[in-house]
Amino acid sequence: MSDFPNNLLQNPSGFPEFLPKESIAEQELNDLIRKHFELSGFTQINTPLVERTEVLTAKSEGEINTQMYGLRLMNPSADSPTDAKDLVLRFDHTVPLARYIALRNRELTFPFKRYTIGPVFRGEKPKEGRYRQFNQADIDIIGDSKLDTVNDAECVSIVVNIFKELNIGQFVIRIGNRKLLQSLTRGLGVEEKETKAVLQIIDKAEKVGVDKTIEDLKKIEGIKLDKINDFNSILFEEKEFIELEQNLLSFSNDEKIHQGISEVKSLISGLLSLGVSPTNFKVDLSIARGLDYYTGNVFETMLVEYPELGSIASGGRYDNLAGSFTNKDYPGVGISIGTTRLLTKLIKVGLIKAEKSTTCPVIITTQLPLEEFSSVYLKQAKILREAGIKTEVYLTDRSLIKELEYANKKGFKIAIITGEQELKENMVIVKDLTTGNQEKIDSSEIANKVKQMLSL
Amino acid sequence: MSDFPNNLLQNPSGFPEFLPKESIAEQELNDLIRKHFELSGFTQINTPLVERTEVLTAKSEGEINTQMYGLRLMNPSADSPTDAKDLVLRFDHTVPLARYIALRNRELTFPFKRYTIGPVFRGEKPKEGRYRQFNQADIDIIGDSKLDTVNDAECVSIVVNIFKELNIGQFVIRIGNRKLLQSLTRGLGVEEKETKAVLQIIDKAEKVGVDKTIEDLKKIEGIKLDKINDFNSILFEEKEFIELEQNLLSFSNDEKIHQGISEVKSLISGLLSLGVSPTNFKVDLSIARGLDYYTGNVFETMLVEYPELGSIASGGRYDNLAGSFTNKDYPGVGISIGTTRLLTKLIKVGLIKAEKSTTCPVIITTQLPLEEFSSVYLKQAKILREAGIKTEVYLTDRSLIKELEYANKKGFKIAIITGEQELKENMVIVKDLTTGNQEKIDSSEIANKVKQMLSL
Repeated sequence: MSDFPNNLLQNPSGFPEFLPKESIAEQELNDLIRKHFELSGFTQINTPLVERTEVLTAKSEGEINTQMYGLRLMNPSADSPTDAKDLVLRFDHTVPLARYIALRNRELTFPFKRYTIGPVFRGEKPKEGRYRQFNQADIDIIGDSKLDTVNDAECVSIVVNIFKELNIGQFVIRIGNRKLLQSLTRGLGVEEKETKAVLQIIDKAEKVGVDKTIEDLKKIEGIKLDKINDFNSILFEEKEFIELEQNLLSFSNDEKIHQGISEVKSLISGLLSLGVSPTNFKVDLSIARGLDYYTGNVFETMLVEYPELGSIASGGRYDNLAGSFTNKDYPGVGISIGTTRLLTKLIKVGLIKAEKSTTCPVIITTQLPLEEFSSVYLKQAKILREAGIKTEVYLTDRSLIKELEYANKKGFKIAIITGEQELKENMVIVKDLTTGNQEKIDSSEIANKVKQMLSL
Repeated sequence: MSDFPNNLLQNPSGFPEFLPKESIAEQELNDLIRKHFELSGFTQINTPLVERTEVLTAKSEGEINTQMYGLRLMNPSADSPTDAKDLVLRFDHTVPLARYIALRNRELTFPFKRYTIGPVFRGEKPKEGRYRQFNQADIDIIGDSKLDTVNDAECVSIVVNIFKELNIGQFVIRIGNRKLLQSLTRGLGVEEKETKAVLQIIDKAEKVGVDKTIEDLKKIEGIKLDKINDFNSILFEEKEFIELEQNLLSFSNDEKIHQGISEVKSLISGLLSLGVSPTNFKVDLSIARGLDYYTGNVFETMLVEYPELGSIASGGRYDNLAGSFTNKDYPGVGISIGTTRLLTKLIKVGLIKAEKSTTCPVIITTQLPLEEFSSVYLKQAKILREAGIKTEVYLTDRSLIKELEYANKKGFKIAIITGEQELKENMVIVKDLTTGNQEKIDSSEIANKVKQMLSL
């Protein structure tokens, strides 16, 4: 008798697991993402889930530091390794990539285009829609010493193509630029050390509104009060880029402004060349994203009808990815889709339907007792599988009614039925489970018939 | 300046990471495995990498207990969750599956056929070919209360098909049976509590030879000395199953012997129905595999020319998967391929060649300066990708020679070249990088030409 406490059977809080329907939806999402990553020439490189503490702490900032999971051996023996205390679970894909590049650059070919889809870990308090283990799908293009801004367009366009094919409604990539923001805050009269405070106020603007934002900005030391309105207009008012460019140049005509404008222009022109519709992106200089990391264009992706979901794909340009680890320059651009969070959000609002319990279209039912007749059904399976058709055999003795119930519940499209009579005649019944229609055919025709029904 | 210690850049010992070539070989291996799993109707279900300590310790035995990695928060704050100390990394896929079934059985449809391909963790001392994080590819079929033995044949045949398509030389699935072994040891006069000792001696037989095995067996309390030769003949001499069956029945004619014989026969007949060649399996009753776990047929897979690699796929039948967690019966059968170990072994002995640095056949070289002409190349990329052709654009200003060097080094098949002259004429050069031949075509023909060259 088991007396295992029922509450302990639950998967640990924040470590999600899915039933077959959600699991299949997740797999389809990951496959679609992977297809687009590979279509643009990215290679899958997975780093370990475990890194040295020194590596991750060299690059972690803010709350991440309190969320890092370390390892320990539960019951060390004389044979146990002693370094468990120096090991931690990764909290993103970018820091491990930086280490990988710093370590292996001589064995790699640059520009280096890699993707990965896999779990990262953060020891957060469990909250709705927050996870402690969640998958992220990342692409990065890393250059050796230099990397043209047009690479930013490659990354953004891939994400656009993914969301278009996902068919989840209207979405917009919001494009900001860190050089422009830096120049603008400098133009505001704000000292370097206060830049962070300004960016935090901007980050909150969408939530608190323009009036409160102006009020908060006025409290910053040294801020030029007469420029706050122009600053807000640049950041928060919708306008064509050509008008925005004029506003920018008249606000702060320094080198950074020119660099930033050129980066944004190069990104936009790249996107248009790659066939991205202007409805799918807009320049929004209020997009900041973590200050210490990005150095050029930055991106966020919003679902127009579901702004409450937040950004579903984010990234940007960093001048020196491997900075803490090596003296060589590796400029890069990357973008990351939080697939676990995205999937659960999209299922929740109904933009992804998790309806299929199997990816397999065909089931061979087994009407005759398996002990004597299993070979009949296994041979049918062999023929269909060899023809490349995914096929399940129902290898338990049940009534045909029960087996067809199972088939309908799981969502098979076609059932193959062979009873005593069919066996005698060397025939099989092929039943279309969607329409309920069925047809008796010669058993040698089984693969052709099923292929035709599945339009293969 | 970075002063990060170089030795710390290395991925932690036992946590492997690959260069692009090995990484692509790993992906191809996993894709091939996945294809065969799905062809037979298995659904991907991934459980979390982290489980509660109580769950894993309820099912762990032997050295696993000293190899389990627990979690801890590195720098807990007031906001941190408090349960990190109760969390451990999984050491296999089977215990998490048992918990999943016990927890979610009411929401699942049985027979439940699931696969997973993903990492497990064991804190072993690093050794050649041993890892602390390694991928395992598992399939399991779980029944509700009953599950016909013919399901064993489904699992084994899938593994046979995988290794056949992998084209790694001759291999044999060795089939043992735990009921037969139990009956045989009882027939030897060995008491229940000594069975484990007998099985340990058998496990070592291949290494130490028949004479030493007999010597060791003689030391077991209560053993019938006159039956040791028959016992050894049954376990270690090659013979046809029909002869073996006679030997078994005359050795120990109890219920278990009859059950075991019937299980093995059902497995063999299922394999033959599924088209498995008799050269790819043999009955070998010396196969034991962990005593407490399996209850019927057990399997190991050997590469005939590389026995030193050990079993590359193992599994078997268990009467009650979720035993520690629930009182309901969930008989199952499963088989597991240790893909990380398999891959590195097969690369090492040359059975898998890791030669490709990209999965992408086409590269668009960029002869004209990107700042002005990137749109020319991006538009070509758009056309090829929309035609479903994986395409990389070389988005860095380099000489054509350097770009073609990169293309050859990474293993692209086709380069698209557009210089000033071609641009003027609205033409492109399509270069076959394997033969070196090139052809100038109208740029509107680019997708058709490339498709034709790739036989798409």
